[in-house]
Amino acid sequence: MGILLELHDTDDQEVQSPSVELSKIAVSSAHGEDSPYFSGWKAYDENPYHEIHNPSGVIQMGLAENQVSFDLVEEYLEKHSEKALFGKKTNSGFRDNALFQDYHGLLSFRKAMASFMEQIRGGRAKFEPTRIVLTAGATAANELLTFILANPGDALLIPTPYYPGFDRDLRWRTGVNIVPIHCESSNNFAITPEALEAAYETARGLNLRVAGVLITNPSNPLGATIQRKVLNEILNFVVEKNIHLISDEIYSGSVFSSSEFVSMAEILEDRKYKNNEKERVHIVYSLSKDLGLPGFRVGTIYSYNDKVVTTARRMSSFTLISSQTQHLLACMLSDEKFVEKYIRINRERLKRRYEMIVNGLREAGIECLKGNAGLFCWMNLGPFLEDPTMESELEIWKLIVNEVKLNISPGSSCHCSEPGWFRVCFANMSENTLEVALKRIRDFVDKMEWKRGGRKPISGNGAGDCKPN
Amino acid sequence: MGILLELHDTDDQEVQSPSVELSKIAVSSAHGEDSPYFSGWKAYDENPYHEIHNPSGVIQMGLAENQVSFDLVEEYLEKHSEKALFGKKTNSGFRDNALFQDYHGLLSFRKAMASFMEQIRGGRAKFEPTRIVLTAGATAANELLTFILANPGDALLIPTPYYPGFDRDLRWRTGVNIVPIHCESSNNFAITPEALEAAYETARGLNLRVAGVLITNPSNPLGATIQRKVLNEILNFVVEKNIHLISDEIYSGSVFSSSEFVSMAEILEDRKYKNNEKERVHIVYSLSKDLGLPGFRVGTIYSYNDKVVTTARRMSSFTLISSQTQHLLACMLSDEKFVEKYIRINRERLKRRYEMIVNGLREAGIECLKGNAGLFCWMNLGPFLEDPTMESELEIWKLIVNEVKLNISPGSSCHCSEPGWFRVCFANMSENTLEVALKRIRDFVDKMEWKRGGRKPISGNGAGDCKPN
Repeated sequence: MGILLELHDTDDQEVQSPSVELSKIAVSSAHGEDSPYFSGWKAYDENPYHEIHNPSGVIQMGLAENQVSFDLVEEYLEKHSEKALFGKKTNSGFRDNALFQDYHGLLSFRKAMASFMEQIRGGRAKFEPTRIVLTAGATAANELLTFILANPGDALLIPTPYYPGFDRDLRWRTGVNIVPIHCESSNNFAITPEALEAAYETARGLNLRVAGVLITNPSNPLGATIQRKVLNEILNFVVEKNIHLISDEIYSGSVFSSSEFVSMAEILEDRKYKNNEKERVHIVYSLSKDLGLPGFRVGTIYSYNDKVVTTARRMSSFTLISSQTQHLLACMLSDEKFVEKYIRINRERLKRRYEMIVNGLREAGIECLKGNAGLFCWMNLGPFLEDPTMESELEIWKLIVNEVKLNISPGSSCHCSEPGWFRVCFANMSENTLEVALKRIRDFVDKMEWKRGGRKPISGNGAGDCKPN
Repeated sequence: MGILLELHDTDDQEVQSPSVELSKIAVSSAHGEDSPYFSGWKAYDENPYHEIHNPSGVIQMGLAENQVSFDLVEEYLEKHSEKALFGKKTNSGFRDNALFQDYHGLLSFRKAMASFMEQIRGGRAKFEPTRIVLTAGATAANELLTFILANPGDALLIPTPYYPGFDRDLRWRTGVNIVPIHCESSNNFAITPEALEAAYETARGLNLRVAGVLITNPSNPLGATIQRKVLNEILNFVVEKNIHLISDEIYSGSVFSSSEFVSMAEILEDRKYKNNEKERVHIVYSLSKDLGLPGFRVGTIYSYNDKVVTTARRMSSFTLISSQTQHLLACMLSDEKFVEKYIRINRERLKRRYEMIVNGLREAGIECLKGNAGLFCWMNLGPFLEDPTMESELEIWKLIVNEVKLNISPGSSCHCSEPGWFRVCFANMSENTLEVALKRIRDFVDKMEWKRGGRKPISGNGAGDCKPN
């Protein structure tokens, strides 16, 4: 997703009072930057942690960035440095690429993307390069699909908790509403037919036409994949209601084991690509997470609906990917040996990181939702809240950001229905930094328990015995 | 501008009849691809001219692409091949760039852009890097400004003839209307205060709120700069009406002599940056035309309104530029010697090309508007029309595309008020190809005159004596 790394803006400080009017979109707050999700970043920006230069600074755990496998990409580029130069030691080919602005994108790149998406899914789903529509990141892909599938005032149903950026991406310029599908911890936040139906009824009760359902699989912020049975139920639901289904699968290559991920593409294949099913299914993908290349702005829409493909391609004129970047990635992703190795090692490393953080948190007495994918875990601080309210959640969040000096994302910014959950990212830092973060959390929990008269703080590993109260 | 190089689409041929509904935007025809401007490209795509392999094919003269100075860019990259590799022989720096997704853009790149924009304007206007907002091309920049300055149903006033893509860029997803400011050949299509006022009244008569005026300077399709006096009048007009002014200056580096171009930035500087003037002025720029890099998708908004800068930056999340490309261009554009040489030689070459085509056309008996900028000339075939109507214009256009085999753009696709004008691009081909195109035009004119009983066709240079009838 397009995430904003730097939010302080000198321009903001000298805002004039313009007499000339701006649009309703311009003056709305639907850009979402005032939410805790984004504002927590300011604390990090103003005082960023550094092992040597600023060891008491804020550690950024609010950023879903994958840095654990970057060395593999660097190693590849080291060996194939000519790729960045358009395929030869000289710059020949540069001219063609610099001029290439066809909104279909480079065929070589679309082929490589289709093949990469198949590899990630263990070959259990097929992708045709002709259906790949390229966009400058998944942020643009999701907005573009919303423009195509929904009218201003319509609703998209989205299971909670969901990525806070959706409030901006899907609503700001499109005028579309999000109606939450409330999911609960009692069944590990699974999406049930009842919850789908309830959200649909809520929308209808608000006199909103429902245009579709959007799921993220694996889920951000849950860090878990959606079960095959649930996916089948969701597809049944959208067919029954005659609405669309956007399946945002940008973490599909970050599942710790390929076999644990079922793509909506696989469901369609299983169900033999029935016309009235496939015409409503649109998959979003990106290289920002799985390959750790958010700066390159590579997103894609894969739709089974021909009209959506054609329209999305036309609309992609507003958000095309640099042909220089397409060329480099076409070379890299069509190297099957590299891709196989990257996917395998990346999965192993993410799993190791995940285990490191959930075990570390457990030692501190904190439980997480059982996850199997992504760059974050979904941490339950419910037992530590003063009261079971969103106010208490924000209280503890402020403590964590300002005193513990960890920027994590409160569940309320993800529209979670239950207070006390937090998203904690673990792949955008070194293992050493992660250890520091875990130690800070242990100390914090000790202090909390001590304050409540539980017992005196225990320094070091002793905290490992704690259980949530 | 985001131009579509390949319009035929296999998907179009197998369109289903989806039962699931798409949005009004998706099914609207405001993407504009059915206009002659875009459909003429199909003729080229299906039968493209090649000197050796297809000498009777269609020559593409509908594409405003600058290939005349590409060797200079290639020469630079040849010498500095390490720049494409992130600054060192090794790939170090790659990691930082690949991860960089801050919507402010690389500071080094914004500095280089600001400096490049100043150099193009002969240093007569200053640009601050903090006000540079980056977008994936000017297509996105113009749409983004429209979202910020106008509400759905509002109007933007645009002088005719104008770039056909505006019908898509400014209207399709925003719901904004374009009301033409009618300009006429009698005063070389200058924008007059009367024409501005008349357009404003037309909009008000249609009950449309006018959000602003958009000018392109130098003009596409006229290939001419706007006079200082006219710019001052336009600024007076937008202040009087309390509306915005977008100045699209994407051809500012393609003026044959720097001294002949006055930027709106220079007007503001002359008038001492008065608050109620500068707050409404927004400049659009791009590297697609002046540097011939449309594939790299580099556009920019330069606004003097702080709130617009902040909002545009947030909105640019939907259309960010690859950090790989930002890095490469930051290096190239901060090389002052290279930039000075490029700008100078590029101007000379464009001027030479321009003279070659207008002299060639004059020899064929065709007059063009006097131009001083851009990658095209504005050709008057009015004297050759059957009747002074748009129908006759399209008749002759079809002949030119299908029989003379030149894809040029009819004035009607640019909303020109007078029939018979055509935009002819000259910088996207070799001089040899341009000679072939000129010969075809000469032969065509001869045939036309002979058909009308004027005189028998004269082959070769003899046509030089013709005068328009």
